[in-house]
Amino acid sequence: MTFWKSLFAAPGTPAAAGRPREKEILLAEKPYRNGETQQIYFSTSRDIDLYELEELCLAVGWARRPHRKVRKAIENSFLVVSLWLERGAQRRLIGFARATSDHAFNATLWDVVVHPEFQGQGLGKTLMDQIIRELRQQDISNITLFADPQVIGFYQQMGFLTDPEGIKGMFWYPR
Amino acid sequence: MTFWKSLFAAPGTPAAAGRPREKEILLAEKPYRNGETQQIYFSTSRDIDLYELEELCLAVGWARRPHRKVRKAIENSFLVVSLWLERGAQRRLIGFARATSDHAFNATLWDVVVHPEFQGQGLGKTLMDQIIRELRQQDISNITLFADPQVIGFYQQMGFLTDPEGIKGMFWYPR
Repeated sequence: MTFWKSLFAAPGTPAAAGRPREKEILLAEKPYRNGETQQIYFSTSRDIDLYELEELCLAVGWARRPHRKVRKAIENSFLVVSLWLERGAQRRLIGFARATSDHAFNATLWDVVVHPEFQGQGLGKTLMDQIIRELRQQDISNITLFADPQVIGFYQQMGFLTDPEGIKGMFWYPR
Repeated sequence: MTFWKSLFAAPGTPAAAGRPREKEILLAEKPYRNGETQQIYFSTSRDIDLYELEELCLAVGWARRPHRKVRKAIENSFLVVSLWLERGAQRRLIGFARATSDHAFNATLWDVVVHPEFQGQGLGKTLMDQIIRELRQQDISNITLFADPQVIGFYQQMGFLTDPEGIKGMFWYPR
């Protein structure tokens, strides 16, 4: 976090079987205008408006996806995390990521995104720190992802390694 | 399959919510000795003896893992597949793989193994063909894995690509 300051962690709601407890953490608070403050929250709730998520993904240039499939993917992810900007009564989704997992050894991150307006403020790093913390709390030690070329450096700064011991990420797509 | 001949597919048992139906397929049958035959079966049952799986994994030089965690990983995999050699009343686990998934877009393969005694007969290819077929039946189109250097060529033959469009597999391990 560069200008956002971590404040406190709030206890969460009971979780679905075998999954991490849902929680919400106030990451940062600062003056906004007219004496108002704005807050940034990290959340592990799966209660995500699919239109809002779509807007976030379109903002970084990703392709539109059927909501039915996105809903299914969220339901069946091991961990779903999001970043929220709160100004007064308004709450806006500004970051998202999710992980599939076997709940034991491996997790794989998908759909890691921070809204372009909020990039360059350390929020991506904060998001990743929280994801790693959540997964480590679940005793998962092999955290993997598939990085587009332009974000490889970012993940390397977070401690991710490319091709360790010659291991290669590989993809199969329908012909 | 090189010398094994595909014969028929048997219907499976009802599946857990959202997961593929369990099924068993007779892949091959040939004479053994004393007029007996031997069969090779492909199965998607999760009913795997953990000691037998451990023996298979140790045979290819993998590290021993706590059964508690292996059990949890199998329970929480989207797809679990295995190859069995049947000779009379004896049934032996000779291949295994599993996949994590969000049940919608992505699947990631883990623990793909064929016993060294049965390598070089096309069984790895058969196992992968069946996995891809199962995942495609679930409408999952992005099948991923992390390949050790010595098996990259094998997966390339199966149609897997390394680093497509510069996308890199990345790993985070606890420090």
